[in-house]
Amino acid sequence: MDGLMQPRPLTIAHVLERAERLYAHKLVVTAGERVTYAEVAEQTRRLATALDSLGVPAGARVATFATNTRRHLELYLAVPITKRVLHSINIRLSAEHLEYIVNHAQDDVVFVDRALLPRIWPSAARMRTVRHWVVLPDDSEAPIPDDPRVVHYDDLVAAAEPFAGSFEDSFTLADENLASGLCYTSGTTGPPKGVLYSHRSTILHCLGTLAAGFIGLCESDVVMPIVPMFHANAWGLPYGAMMTGASLVLPGPSSDPSHLLKLMETERVTVAGAVPTVWTSLVTELRSHDLSATRFLLGGGSVIAPALSEIYRAAIGVPITHSWGMTEISPVGTIGGTRSRHRDAPAEEQVAVRASQGQPLPLVNLRIADVETGTELPRDGKAIGELQVAGPWVAGGYFRVDTPESFTSDGWLRTGDLATIDADGYVRLVDRMKDLIKSGGEWISSVELESALTSHPDVVEVAVVARPDPKWGERPVAYVVLRDGSATTGDDLLRHITPAVAKWWLPDEVVFRTALPKTGTGKLSKSTLRATT
Amino acid sequence: MDGLMQPRPLTIAHVLERAERLYAHKLVVTAGERVTYAEVAEQTRRLATALDSLGVPAGARVATFATNTRRHLELYLAVPITKRVLHSINIRLSAEHLEYIVNHAQDDVVFVDRALLPRIWPSAARMRTVRHWVVLPDDSEAPIPDDPRVVHYDDLVAAAEPFAGSFEDSFTLADENLASGLCYTSGTTGPPKGVLYSHRSTILHCLGTLAAGFIGLCESDVVMPIVPMFHANAWGLPYGAMMTGASLVLPGPSSDPSHLLKLMETERVTVAGAVPTVWTSLVTELRSHDLSATRFLLGGGSVIAPALSEIYRAAIGVPITHSWGMTEISPVGTIGGTRSRHRDAPAEEQVAVRASQGQPLPLVNLRIADVETGTELPRDGKAIGELQVAGPWVAGGYFRVDTPESFTSDGWLRTGDLATIDADGYVRLVDRMKDLIKSGGEWISSVELESALTSHPDVVEVAVVARPDPKWGERPVAYVVLRDGSATTGDDLLRHITPAVAKWWLPDEVVFRTALPKTGTGKLSKSTLRATT
Repeated sequence: MDGLMQPRPLTIAHVLERAERLYAHKLVVTAGERVTYAEVAEQTRRLATALDSLGVPAGARVATFATNTRRHLELYLAVPITKRVLHSINIRLSAEHLEYIVNHAQDDVVFVDRALLPRIWPSAARMRTVRHWVVLPDDSEAPIPDDPRVVHYDDLVAAAEPFAGSFEDSFTLADENLASGLCYTSGTTGPPKGVLYSHRSTILHCLGTLAAGFIGLCESDVVMPIVPMFHANAWGLPYGAMMTGASLVLPGPSSDPSHLLKLMETERVTVAGAVPTVWTSLVTELRSHDLSATRFLLGGGSVIAPALSEIYRAAIGVPITHSWGMTEISPVGTIGGTRSRHRDAPAEEQVAVRASQGQPLPLVNLRIADVETGTELPRDGKAIGELQVAGPWVAGGYFRVDTPESFTSDGWLRTGDLATIDADGYVRLVDRMKDLIKSGGEWISSVELESALTSHPDVVEVAVVARPDPKWGERPVAYVVLRDGSATTGDDLLRHITPAVAKWWLPDEVVFRTALPKTGTGKLSKSTLRATT
Repeated sequence: MDGLMQPRPLTIAHVLERAERLYAHKLVVTAGERVTYAEVAEQTRRLATALDSLGVPAGARVATFATNTRRHLELYLAVPITKRVLHSINIRLSAEHLEYIVNHAQDDVVFVDRALLPRIWPSAARMRTVRHWVVLPDDSEAPIPDDPRVVHYDDLVAAAEPFAGSFEDSFTLADENLASGLCYTSGTTGPPKGVLYSHRSTILHCLGTLAAGFIGLCESDVVMPIVPMFHANAWGLPYGAMMTGASLVLPGPSSDPSHLLKLMETERVTVAGAVPTVWTSLVTELRSHDLSATRFLLGGGSVIAPALSEIYRAAIGVPITHSWGMTEISPVGTIGGTRSRHRDAPAEEQVAVRASQGQPLPLVNLRIADVETGTELPRDGKAIGELQVAGPWVAGGYFRVDTPESFTSDGWLRTGDLATIDADGYVRLVDRMKDLIKSGGEWISSVELESALTSHPDVVEVAVVARPDPKWGERPVAYVVLRDGSATTGDDLLRHITPAVAKWWLPDEVVFRTALPKTGTGKLSKSTLRATT
């Protein structure tokens, strides 16, 4: 016997139309430009018609190659609510990967920031399915190709009539499973793989970002996704903010620390999200800005060293809260931070809790499994196994590629992360399976060594990777970036971490560098380091 | 093209298993008894097996006739997660309605508080489908019938083995539409009508209760549903609290003001929900208790007079936040209170905003329509029309009865409430369509007159209803309960409200009573008053 509730679908159209009805006056701030949700909605309604005029079929992929701007937000809305699929492309990909994914996704149109044209246009001839290139204006004066396929965004949108009806009414219950978005993983092994989101998964994830006590986006928030809109949906912050009526601050192309901190100060940002390398880059100037409006800083993409989070807590009273997620998880899986049972715990215990990846959002199920046998392991905070995840916003497959090895026989995603889970469901990442170092038959966690090294005041960045060793199999090597002018030596660092780690974990060598290699999403690229270690 | 997310259903099983995995140590407090979620879960797993042993088929209705207790919570869980339907019966119904709905629902089993047995057992012979009566122990020594159909809850549960597997795993995507609960409306006109909830609607509503800036239930909350668990799912508070790991305080059968306030004080309750008559009953003792833990008081079921809310704000710093809802809406539709744009508004404007019913929760769509033509009316805060509602937790029909007049041709629920909606989507209830008074061809709002009268310090309760009038068609009459010992006269009250309402709105008569008639859910029964006016 089925219930008798109205068969209303979960769709991104609701996000737009809710903002129109309730939050028309709230703001979207892009560097240099302030518009209201009413204006964003008006533009979105024009863009919807413009996509029709370009002849983009339902279900077709519409790519963006763009930074965090108001126009990118309009694409986040207009593309899925007209039943096309938003393919946000990582702007830092190599030409080879770029061509691969545009061809694999069979993108019909590409919307590209003018400043980014020089990075993608040379590949245009090899992107066989793309019929239109739409240029998003910015401060750049990059040359615009004289080509009939190239259109200017503002011209395109201005020429279109705004769609006057309800997008929400155009969806039926079955439509909530329609694809709404597509993101490719950065693909450290093999070609990038596409994750195809649905309206349903996006809206459920969006409700997850609103849940109080987790990120808890609400109307009084001013939300700044520093994390790029091409990186795993900017962690759901744009849709979440708009659904709940929070104002949005989109920092545009610049990742300059002063620019970001000034925006946070002047716009009274309450919630911001960024990867650890960005949070690290802001440290030096942190105390020169009034960040008193800030209530929540979200960190994800890689493990946040506790020392980094504590620097923020000391400076502005707000730690960096850990989120663990993946492109495959829409992307938020867990949110860290303390809960009521830690309220009276000693300070060091609270630091330890904040250093973990936290508890799963509602609707997300986690477990750990023995790496060899696949048997589920106990939630005792000790057993280490592969983290596996199930839930309505978790991928069950990849776009147009069969990868049974990525999923268990009962359909859970295998994350490739090694973790413990404790009796309160707190996840503690031990390492990526491929980053773990096996020395003399025992495991060494590169993540723990990195956290210990980062706690030294002169260390700016660090990566620990395995070096093949004839006697032990593998031994750890640390790559370290020191702050300018520091005279700290490798021995100093080893002495510093000796109290925190087992003696046989101490790296065989400490190599100083002026910078460490990064992946397309700004994470440390350990594979690059490993290849030369 | 459909997305490739895992086909995971939204089910109440997740609420139980999430609490087991993450919040096992959190508390459920019933008057006199403190248990953990782990213990509730263990009992629930036994009860699940016990329902099998009673031979209750899948889809069968399992009724509860019970107050807010830990055992009622176990029924809230075990019944739907074993794919049966929880039918929570209003314990204040007349014998006639009681027999009607048990027979209409074809309840297979009834779980009944021992103290309530004398109220329902006399009807047992006429409840043709009920095979088992299970007695929930309480402080009462009401006689237990010597009848083979009667079982003791604790014996039944103790004899059952706890189900050891995952209930969540037993659901498929299609199962999220399975019926999970059934509530009958109080039926002021015609027989009561049943609203059949699904797992999907329940979980989406549950996520709605977690949304920050609305009710925003979170792990650090201690949630006390004073609103009965037989009244529209206790407004979703039990499931919401459990999903997010908040502790629950269930006040049991007593609605004694001292008992309720003492519980709020000793358990450090942060969130409580009750109908206005209960909030009114607590006023006298409000300042004798330490309610400093309270952060949110929810009022619904009827309009909250602004004066009442302001008494709370003055006494404990927390106003009563308006929620508008209906059994048909699971039940929460809107949440009141101010938003960021009112932060610097004058105090009286903030009071006016708090007096409105607020904005819809995410996923809820509202509109107003002309009563005669059904045309949608503007959202200008002025036009008055019938409030209509759409959303995934809104009824699209009633259980086993065809009532096309309750729905529009496009499937929206017609609420029977008259309201305005402003440009921010704030709803302001004007009146129930049937309570509005038509005098000389113009409308008089009984709700506005009641709010004005309630602002007099000696007025405890008030109801304004229409009296047939040969000249004007209808004229308002006010029924008033004064505080003990008050010498206030009808003329005093009319003088008091003269500045606030149009002269021709002044009631023709003020009738003093020692109490006003109530419906089964504790609301004022205007139909009873109208019948004798």
